[in-house]
Amino acid sequence: MAPIRSLDELAPGMSFDLGRFVLPREEVLDFARRFDPQPFHLDEAAARNSIFGRLVASGLHTFSAAVGHLIRSGIFAAVNLGAGGAELKWPAPLEPDTPVTMRVTVEEIRHSRSKPGMAIVKLRYIVAVERDGTVVLEVLAPHFMKR
Amino acid sequence: MAPIRSLDELAPGMSFDLGRFVLPREEVLDFARRFDPQPFHLDEAAARNSIFGRLVASGLHTFSAAVGHLIRSGIFAAVNLGAGGAELKWPAPLEPDTPVTMRVTVEEIRHSRSKPGMAIVKLRYIVAVERDGTVVLEVLAPHFMKR
Repeated sequence: MAPIRSLDELAPGMSFDLGRFVLPREEVLDFARRFDPQPFHLDEAAARNSIFGRLVASGLHTFSAAVGHLIRSGIFAAVNLGAGGAELKWPAPLEPDTPVTMRVTVEEIRHSRSKPGMAIVKLRYIVAVERDGTVVLEVLAPHFMKR
Repeated sequence: MAPIRSLDELAPGMSFDLGRFVLPREEVLDFARRFDPQPFHLDEAAARNSIFGRLVASGLHTFSAAVGHLIRSGIFAAVNLGAGGAELKWPAPLEPDTPVTMRVTVEEIRHSRSKPGMAIVKLRYIVAVERDGTVVLEVLAPHFMKR
């Protein structure tokens, strides 16, 4: 997949398959210890008694790993200036060591009137379990991008 | 601040001061390397040429650290079952080693009809620079909570 060289190469509806990634169990536990130390992210026995029924990754971890995967793909490296926010949904939990796929779609492009050559590009990221397509993360994020 | 023992102790408008935390420079760099390896989060010289003008923490890091701070406060430990999503805004970037304060407010409580004793509690988290009050993170997150 060739990196985007300018905002002008993007159009609403364009979609990018970013391949797969996985959250290894040790990283799930390490992330949870630092940023989301709740029993259902840390302890198998406690997780069995939670609403999840088993140990699941912190949604923060799923989100962070998805962004990391997107950044490392390099697809928007030449045009992305940063994101001002994000709407997140975690429709289903993600278990450790479960391969997921990621797709990014251009939802909307709003050109700046005050800053020519810049736009807010709304990207939707969908992360789904490879095995059965269960969506575990959906993000809608406005990215500032440039020509 | 006494931990909440039941959903019934919460009411819209209640607000909790969670004190302060800080993102040390080394952790900012470590987080960015793993999850958000963009020049303005990793390299001082590159950051000077970015729209931020200096090295700033990944918004993912600010968000993750804020959730970690909330979880570690223990305030909702007995009632929180998890969150199904979140709306995030990063109104301003956060520099490393800059103390921030955090406040959580109960925005709305919607009791479940199908599951008595459970509700969706919308919490707003505000993280602001202690020195001047600049808001660096605003989150609105629906938490499942129980009696």
